[in-house]
Amino acid sequence: MKIVFLVFDGITALDAIGPYEVLARLPGAEVVFAGLQKGEVRTDNKVLGLTADVGIDDVTSCDLLVVPGGYGTRRLEKDERLLNWIRAIDRDTKITASVCTGALLLSAAGLLRGVRANTHWALRERLSEHGAIPAAQRVVRDGKYATAAGVSAGIDLALELALELFGHDVAAAIQLGIEYDPDPPLDCGDAARADPKIRDAVLGRVRARDAQAKAQG
Amino acid sequence: MKIVFLVFDGITALDAIGPYEVLARLPGAEVVFAGLQKGEVRTDNKVLGLTADVGIDDVTSCDLLVVPGGYGTRRLEKDERLLNWIRAIDRDTKITASVCTGALLLSAAGLLRGVRANTHWALRERLSEHGAIPAAQRVVRDGKYATAAGVSAGIDLALELALELFGHDVAAAIQLGIEYDPDPPLDCGDAARADPKIRDAVLGRVRARDAQAKAQG
Repeated sequence: MKIVFLVFDGITALDAIGPYEVLARLPGAEVVFAGLQKGEVRTDNKVLGLTADVGIDDVTSCDLLVVPGGYGTRRLEKDERLLNWIRAIDRDTKITASVCTGALLLSAAGLLRGVRANTHWALRERLSEHGAIPAAQRVVRDGKYATAAGVSAGIDLALELALELFGHDVAAAIQLGIEYDPDPPLDCGDAARADPKIRDAVLGRVRARDAQAKAQG
Repeated sequence: MKIVFLVFDGITALDAIGPYEVLARLPGAEVVFAGLQKGEVRTDNKVLGLTADVGIDDVTSCDLLVVPGGYGTRRLEKDERLLNWIRAIDRDTKITASVCTGALLLSAAGLLRGVRANTHWALRERLSEHGAIPAAQRVVRDGKYATAAGVSAGIDLALELALELFGHDVAAAIQLGIEYDPDPPLDCGDAARADPKIRDAVLGRVRARDAQAKAQG
């Protein structure tokens, strides 16, 4: 089972590394990180470098494509070379997945027209720009598409896929292996239940940074 | 606030990237990834490269040190250059933290004698080798030490530290920003509640791989 993670400058690292840590443990998984070019990409805050072992031109097919998010997706929504690659790869995938604003790339590629999908809660309305149907669920499955909410939701998405593709015992062993028994100190990770003051502050920051990324794009 | 993440060949990526995604969002955070040498390290499965922007010799102090785990820690438990660096850095930290088997490095450095600490559940007994007091909690705080359970527990550890250091509103905004409202499809991430058959299989695999890493060390 060939699994490809797209990486790019401006990626949010956990969007990719959360599902990677689950999916790389699937039986027979062959995982590769692909960038627009081979070489290092830097995260949204520029603090961390991740290695793209191959460029997208070296990847012609895979079983599972994972497109993570980050403010870097804004610029890429207009990158026809990347969008064409996503479209071509998607033709052969069993599952095409995204985390956070990775869904906006799948959407910009035209893959989510009429498809129920999710992204980061603060940018969910942008899904409809290219005809996706916004769904406020942590993990959304619709046909061959699997889209997760923001950043940390990619872990849950990957475990759902492990369960779906390989069954209970494999998914349970992976979850126990990464000791995923989450216990956040606060109950505020969902926008619908968050303190409105904090929600509005985060919403403002995310939208301002998205607008900035659009202006720079 | 200077935050240093140790990275090394054989690291489990999520051990570092989980807390990084939280801590890099702290007000005034200055985050750096440090390796034994500057340059790329490869994860435990060799699938992913992370960049160490500096070598440990370039880091002489920080406020928060985060030591992640992975099978690569086995070899490093005997690396006196690294252990001496950890001891020296620890003298000035406000908090010294670990995720998963990163605790076994803090322990090997002699920092956890008489300190309550945790690591990956399957290797918890190894904490007592250097006098730490094993505690089966997801996040353990004892004095200036903060140690997390396996792999994914680093996210909860980092949110606990955000709450402790910067208070409710900062921690809540970060948690909402990374949409951390976990919802795993199975309830099996804690060894005490896991199916014994699956627990024993994972325990066997983790201990076998740890023994192999020890033999290769």
